[in-house]
Amino acid sequence: MSIYLHDIPLDEAQKSLRQSLEDAGLWKILAVEEIPLDENAAGRVIAEPVWARMSSPHYHASAMDGFALRAEQTAGAMPTSPVILEIGPQAQYVDTGDPLPDWANAVVPIENVESLDFHQRTVDDLRHPDLIRLRAALTPWSHVRPMGEDIVATQLVLPAGQMLRPVDLGAVAASGLTSVKVSKKPRVGVLPTGTELIEVGKPVKRGDIIEYNSIVLAAQVQSWGGDARRYPISADDFGLICMRVQQAADENDLVLLNAGSSAGSEDFSARVVQELGRLLVHGVAVRPGHPVILGLIRRSDGSGVTPIIGVPGYPVSAALTGEIFVEPLLATWQGRQPGRPVEVTAALTRKITSPAGDDDFVRMVAGRVGDRLLAAPLSRGAGVITSLVRADGICVLPRGVQGLEPGAPVRLRLYRPPYELEHTIFAIGSHDMTLDLVAQFLAERDRRLVSANVGSQGGLVALRRGEAHLAGSHLLDPETGDYNLPYLKQYLPDTPVQVVTWVGREQGLLVPRGNPKGIRGLQDLLRADVRYINRQRGAGTRVLFDYHLGKLGIDPTKIQGYSQEEYTHLAVAAAVASGRADCGMAVTASAVALDLDFIPLFQERYDLIIPCEYLHGDLLRPIFDLMGDARFRRAVAAMPGYDLSQMGRVVQSCPD
Amino acid sequence: MSIYLHDIPLDEAQKSLRQSLEDAGLWKILAVEEIPLDENAAGRVIAEPVWARMSSPHYHASAMDGFALRAEQTAGAMPTSPVILEIGPQAQYVDTGDPLPDWANAVVPIENVESLDFHQRTVDDLRHPDLIRLRAALTPWSHVRPMGEDIVATQLVLPAGQMLRPVDLGAVAASGLTSVKVSKKPRVGVLPTGTELIEVGKPVKRGDIIEYNSIVLAAQVQSWGGDARRYPISADDFGLICMRVQQAADENDLVLLNAGSSAGSEDFSARVVQELGRLLVHGVAVRPGHPVILGLIRRSDGSGVTPIIGVPGYPVSAALTGEIFVEPLLATWQGRQPGRPVEVTAALTRKITSPAGDDDFVRMVAGRVGDRLLAAPLSRGAGVITSLVRADGICVLPRGVQGLEPGAPVRLRLYRPPYELEHTIFAIGSHDMTLDLVAQFLAERDRRLVSANVGSQGGLVALRRGEAHLAGSHLLDPETGDYNLPYLKQYLPDTPVQVVTWVGREQGLLVPRGNPKGIRGLQDLLRADVRYINRQRGAGTRVLFDYHLGKLGIDPTKIQGYSQEEYTHLAVAAAVASGRADCGMAVTASAVALDLDFIPLFQERYDLIIPCEYLHGDLLRPIFDLMGDARFRRAVAAMPGYDLSQMGRVVQSCPD
Repeated sequence: MSIYLHDIPLDEAQKSLRQSLEDAGLWKILAVEEIPLDENAAGRVIAEPVWARMSSPHYHASAMDGFALRAEQTAGAMPTSPVILEIGPQAQYVDTGDPLPDWANAVVPIENVESLDFHQRTVDDLRHPDLIRLRAALTPWSHVRPMGEDIVATQLVLPAGQMLRPVDLGAVAASGLTSVKVSKKPRVGVLPTGTELIEVGKPVKRGDIIEYNSIVLAAQVQSWGGDARRYPISADDFGLICMRVQQAADENDLVLLNAGSSAGSEDFSARVVQELGRLLVHGVAVRPGHPVILGLIRRSDGSGVTPIIGVPGYPVSAALTGEIFVEPLLATWQGRQPGRPVEVTAALTRKITSPAGDDDFVRMVAGRVGDRLLAAPLSRGAGVITSLVRADGICVLPRGVQGLEPGAPVRLRLYRPPYELEHTIFAIGSHDMTLDLVAQFLAERDRRLVSANVGSQGGLVALRRGEAHLAGSHLLDPETGDYNLPYLKQYLPDTPVQVVTWVGREQGLLVPRGNPKGIRGLQDLLRADVRYINRQRGAGTRVLFDYHLGKLGIDPTKIQGYSQEEYTHLAVAAAVASGRADCGMAVTASAVALDLDFIPLFQERYDLIIPCEYLHGDLLRPIFDLMGDARFRRAVAAMPGYDLSQMGRVVQSCPD
Repeated sequence: MSIYLHDIPLDEAQKSLRQSLEDAGLWKILAVEEIPLDENAAGRVIAEPVWARMSSPHYHASAMDGFALRAEQTAGAMPTSPVILEIGPQAQYVDTGDPLPDWANAVVPIENVESLDFHQRTVDDLRHPDLIRLRAALTPWSHVRPMGEDIVATQLVLPAGQMLRPVDLGAVAASGLTSVKVSKKPRVGVLPTGTELIEVGKPVKRGDIIEYNSIVLAAQVQSWGGDARRYPISADDFGLICMRVQQAADENDLVLLNAGSSAGSEDFSARVVQELGRLLVHGVAVRPGHPVILGLIRRSDGSGVTPIIGVPGYPVSAALTGEIFVEPLLATWQGRQPGRPVEVTAALTRKITSPAGDDDFVRMVAGRVGDRLLAAPLSRGAGVITSLVRADGICVLPRGVQGLEPGAPVRLRLYRPPYELEHTIFAIGSHDMTLDLVAQFLAERDRRLVSANVGSQGGLVALRRGEAHLAGSHLLDPETGDYNLPYLKQYLPDTPVQVVTWVGREQGLLVPRGNPKGIRGLQDLLRADVRYINRQRGAGTRVLFDYHLGKLGIDPTKIQGYSQEEYTHLAVAAAVASGRADCGMAVTASAVALDLDFIPLFQERYDLIIPCEYLHGDLLRPIFDLMGDARFRRAVAAMPGYDLSQMGRVVQSCPD
């Protein structure tokens, strides 16, 4: 039996869940508990308004160290005609915070009085003189904190629904309360299912999938104020999953049933929900995340139902399902408003298309280049968890929108503080293995490196469009044998740039350990038993490869795999390491990284191209600092195939 | 002995602390620990860069449920000329996530093939046919997630210094790690001192101060990733405090010594630090917070020093000292960047002055009124913890700035999500006890009420200046006996407004329980033994009071306390309850709130004045909803002295 309801729109799915929870009496604060007022109350959500039980201060308090007195007795005091008061009947020493004597109505600070004892006295002694002299009159209630200055008994201190922050705890204590009523943390059971799954820490073999969705979901739940419990992995066994789901429904307020990533596995989840309760929704028109399941499980003890959310198996879909469905539900159960991420408007760098029927959640990186805040879409693959890790924010393209053109304004819900967007260096261009090191060293210097690997020519185009602060480039000019400079005239005729050499590096062929096919050079690529993996057009490595093919008179169409393109050195290395290809051209370090053999062929120069307008700003300074930083240079030198002798050399400078 | 070093500028104090910690080898990550990769790792800070140990996927994985095959064998397949493949040698069923067989290089999704078995078959059976038919050619690697699509072994997954978010845990697991190296949580001991302090929960008598700074500080430390421990309250006993400080310094990485609020108490703290170690700074030119102490305590075992921060006793100073000195230190010890609050620029509503020598931290509320984001300064008192609770953000007026004029742009570090600022209703005008109820009910409706009590006339001025969405007003016109309308012509000649009646309410004299002075009416205020507490000029209650004084021919200058002004009904009630005055005029509910007797004198009408431009927006809709909400009306009716019969009546409407 296959259950497949049609995908329904997101808002309908949310309404359906809400309606059925309202019907079940579960669309409200689940439970309230009273907890002691201490630091562990921070982060909890107040379930009832906090009204002040007492005033603060709860008496008239001196606001200074000084003498309490009656203001009327200082009338007329002036520098030339001081007033003298007798300690005891007319004035009394008070420390800050001390209660005012009943008869007093003002305080004169100790630094504004003179003691009339003319012996040598210390400041301590000044507190116990017999007479004091004042040379200025006081108004009633000066230097007094009147009762209720901060809080008046019965006033509202905090509204219900507020998440307690550290200072809130102070205000609650000041208003005389010793405990707070907060919503109970909703309990959430997380059940991973799938025969292909293995736990973190177990040995991994081909076909195994490391199960981490449950960790991500549990951590999400805890960050949203819930109490998460992970259950063991269940193989795809209907009876076993039914048993575990029933147990989890009995023990929790919500069950997250994480299916495997296959369509079959999701049908399985739906059948379990039908067996144990009621299936409300099977399939939601969101991307990624289509196969979301919503339902209710009957509790064994007949006490009602527990909602269940069938979470898709792909990690990006799983995490977004948490954000879209779980967070608002936990918010309702805690009596708080759902989280409201900071939003910014940014200009889209690339065209994106979107299925018209779906609410499409597009992950993007964002940063300021010049005076524009830019948003560049990341990989759309639901299996690419790093796209969520790298994302600065998410943009929702609603149903009905089929795509957006470059330059279109997009609204991003931010995953990072806006501060970081303003401290982001966009490096678009050729991939180099040192960029990861740069990212790490910049992170220590309050900068974030966002790099997009589009090849050297792509980087120059990005600079022309004003979409990057710098581009790494290693474009060989076949005519002159020089690097980069001839291309600048072609790609950036109107943009003054500085060209700084970054590294010299070795390019060559990556082959499996032991070079089983005995490959020696480019001529071998014509052999029938050799499959090549290429770089994309516009990549410096591709230019270099094509240049040498031409020099050798090799017809590219005769090379198997010439049309198979990858976008980074490491991706080429991965293709060779996995056996998808027999060889590919890349830098030395990529061979070492994936334990491949390397056949060195050429030396080349990799430069940074920096538009003059960014050269002297604060933003890029750490990049220049790194070129001279001994620890950084050592780290680069430790990578194989790099020549640092030219690092920092200015090949072309900006006009003064 | 009194130690009083001069206040030094904030940046110098910070540098001094940093320099002495660098000298002591304590300006770095304090310690690293390896923790298992599970949901409890969320929120911890990575101490070393995370490099991928394996690729993800770690094999070529099918991206769909379908058949693995060689793309070349589908060449030429078209709707009119299908290709037929034999299961086994030419095609093999794979689920999503399954490894591709070695010989295959593409996957055709199950929905794109036809089974050549013509018997009735279910979808499940379709997975095991003998022959399949394809009507479209495939390119190599289509519907395959190649090894390393997400993560390539050896690449940087996360830079050191990143706080682990839920999705980050997924990426770390996907890259083959089973544990993470994180910085240890810094241990922070919090020591409250002061003979006047009592613990939360103990009975409170006059002069006692409830000790809650240690709760606020401990909660702050925990929210910043530290591990806080509170020590018992120490009385002002030099030996006892020395013993406790030494113990805390031996047991923690940082000691926060919270002094009492008096100057003497702070000298005490400084002497303790001098006794047990080295006093670096005594007094920092920040406001509030001047008497901050920075020092180093020698550890008993000779293993080095523990920094100590002497935190001022006033609660606002204490919390800000945490933000200014403790958070950045904990960040450094965890190897992360300090927190970066969201910042916005807003227009100042009122003039503020600032001591030229101090970095002045001004708490403000903020919200959008019309197209302007406004910031209104809150109470500057260091003892007013509610000013921090109510604050939407803080503005730093640096040394050298002596003040700002109304309208000046100020930069606010936000304490709340910007979303809330856009959902804030500014109500400026006359205070009414129902406003707290409104705040509570609005919080349930995704709105925040920020009210400033400046009196009815002050509210009309605020509307004229475009600084409020609505004003509560109960201004009696002595000539006509009507409320509010005559004043609108005077104060808002050019601003079309809607006037809606909110409540009718009783005004009268508040007197202590039992009315010990036998006050009956306004005539009694002339008695020599009666002290009055007045409302400020412009308040509707003041207008009412003055109107009736005039009618009775009473000379205000003959009333004791006529010049003593308070800004709210509750503040008047507090003055009477504390004995500061014998009576004052206010609404019934304020008497009940503070357990006073009430002598009813007049009935009056309290209206809401709403500029027409805000009338139909989304923002204020919940206010109108409340007027008809049964639960809200019941809550108001339960307060004494309110008449709801006219609630919602439009007294003056907007032009269509």
